Amino acid sequence: MTATLLDGKAIAKTMQAEIDAAVAEFKEKTGITPTIAVVRAGEDPGSVWYAGAIKKTMAARGMEAQLHVLPETASQEELVALVARLNADPTVHGIMVQEPMPKGVDEGAVKAALSPDKDVDGVHEVNAGRLAMAAPAGRPAGVGPFFVPATPAGGLELMRRYGVEFNGQNAVVLGRSNIVGKPMALLLMRENATVTICHSRSKDLPAICRGADILCVAVGRAEMVRGDWIKPGAVVVDFGVNEVEGKMVGDVAYAEAVEVAGLITPVPGGTGPMTNVMLCLNVLEAARRQVR
Amino acid sequence: MTATLLDGKAIAKTMQAEIDAAVAEFKEKTGITPTIAVVRAGEDPGSVWYAGAIKKTMAARGMEAQLHVLPETASQEELVALVARLNADPTVHGIMVQEPMPKGVDEGAVKAALSPDKDVDGVHEVNAGRLAMAAPAGRPAGVGPFFVPATPAGGLELMRRYGVEFNGQNAVVLGRSNIVGKPMALLLMRENATVTICHSRSKDLPAICRGADILCVAVGRAEMVRGDWIKPGAVVVDFGVNEVEGKMVGDVAYAEAVEVAGLITPVPGGTGPMTNVMLCLNVLEAARRQVR
Repeated sequence: MTATLLDGKAIAKTMQAEIDAAVAEFKEKTGITPTIAVVRAGEDPGSVWYAGAIKKTMAARGMEAQLHVLPETASQEELVALVARLNADPTVHGIMVQEPMPKGVDEGAVKAALSPDKDVDGVHEVNAGRLAMAAPAGRPAGVGPFFVPATPAGGLELMRRYGVEFNGQNAVVLGRSNIVGKPMALLLMRENATVTICHSRSKDLPAICRGADILCVAVGRAEMVRGDWIKPGAVVVDFGVNEVEGKMVGDVAYAEAVEVAGLITPVPGGTGPMTNVMLCLNVLEAARRQVR
Repeated sequence: MTATLLDGKAIAKTMQAEIDAAVAEFKEKTGITPTIAVVRAGEDPGSVWYAGAIKKTMAARGMEAQLHVLPETASQEELVALVARLNADPTVHGIMVQEPMPKGVDEGAVKAALSPDKDVDGVHEVNAGRLAMAAPAGRPAGVGPFFVPATPAGGLELMRRYGVEFNGQNAVVLGRSNIVGKPMALLLMRENATVTICHSRSKDLPAICRGADILCVAVGRAEMVRGDWIKPGAVVVDFGVNEVEGKMVGDVAYAEAVEVAGLITPVPGGTGPMTNVMLCLNVLEAARRQVR
């Protein structure tokens, strides 16, 4: 049996239409264009490419992305000052500071300088704390409004749109980064899954993965998860983006996994397009919260 | 084989002596007495008892606990105003707001009003976020200093003092509260354990527990975890405090579990005394951070 695709590209397209309508309505009502400021220091090629992609994505949704580029020699004080200026700018609703930041800059301090209300990337400690403390979905959250990093939020939304059941399911998350693994684990726990978080020190990963009804992988190692690590019928969400011999492959050995899984994301075309739409949604939501 | 006790009472005594020396040194150097303000609205018997216990505990360590009691009819605004006053009071280094708060009060909003620097109870979203985002132990945390709720911090410290190995071990946490389960899971993950978080919706708890090298239980159900849920030789940390026929029992069926586990906390005398010393340590640490 071959798995059904978790077709992020198709779902993203559907969501783009939803966002287009919501943005149009927002602009009609307020006269304001939801705007993200992307901050970068230096010319890291990946960051340059991503900033351009955000600009295009936002424009296609009727929103705006400003690019604020500092020289590679920018100090922490300069970055924090720029962030403070953007925090105070009412025409900017969301702010993303790209990494890597220059050598010697305390990235945590720059993120902490963001206004949590404009932290559409979900990297501020207040947003991380609210996600960590939020009550299970369906109950009053017990915390203020917050932003979730776009990548795990997109993975969850993709599963939701395919009707994946979370309640009481065993979910395994490989990877414990602050932008994918940890928030993904917290999101799945909020959906009442039983969540296991694995990482580089975990033992016997194949056996742990084989217990997963839902397997989310964000380790940055090409095709590490093999077909025989997957429980037949499981949901497999691959956040990996690895370049191998000029080709983009995920953290899951797709050709093997697709024969075992019930639902699986392709790479590319799975979680990637979802990240883009979730970032758009976060920017729109930030604008909604700020413009009343 | 009978398990070795994780003797919280004995370890707490050792730590009390350490804290006594540290407090004496701090007072000698600064002339200042580390002070916690305990805020309560109303006369919930458990809260009244706990506030009294904190006062005694702190006094025994050469520190001070102020009690600030509002009437049961106190509004959210009154609680927040009191917290704001204590935030601004340089003679107060730590603040704890007891629960339950009066009906109609948004507890999350009151906690968010605390200064994170004085949140010795670890309930502020900034402290939760920093714990969630902190890098694994041994690496630079990548976040500012933070406070961890005393109960899970005490559980971890108790295991540490008995030389429990965390690295690569399978840890299972039963319960996902913001003051025990979730921070316990994040602490164990920081120590490089592979962590599974279970809760009321989890299926087949006994099987999941039997996979645990380290089992931490905070569910508030008397003796729910049976002896045959425990892997022979496992470390069992019981945070449960249940009154059954006038007797205090944990969430683990102790008489059964002690025959299977390798290390186990008694109830009482396990995690309870550790909570007290960790709170003392947090207050001392808060004073250290604030008095320079």
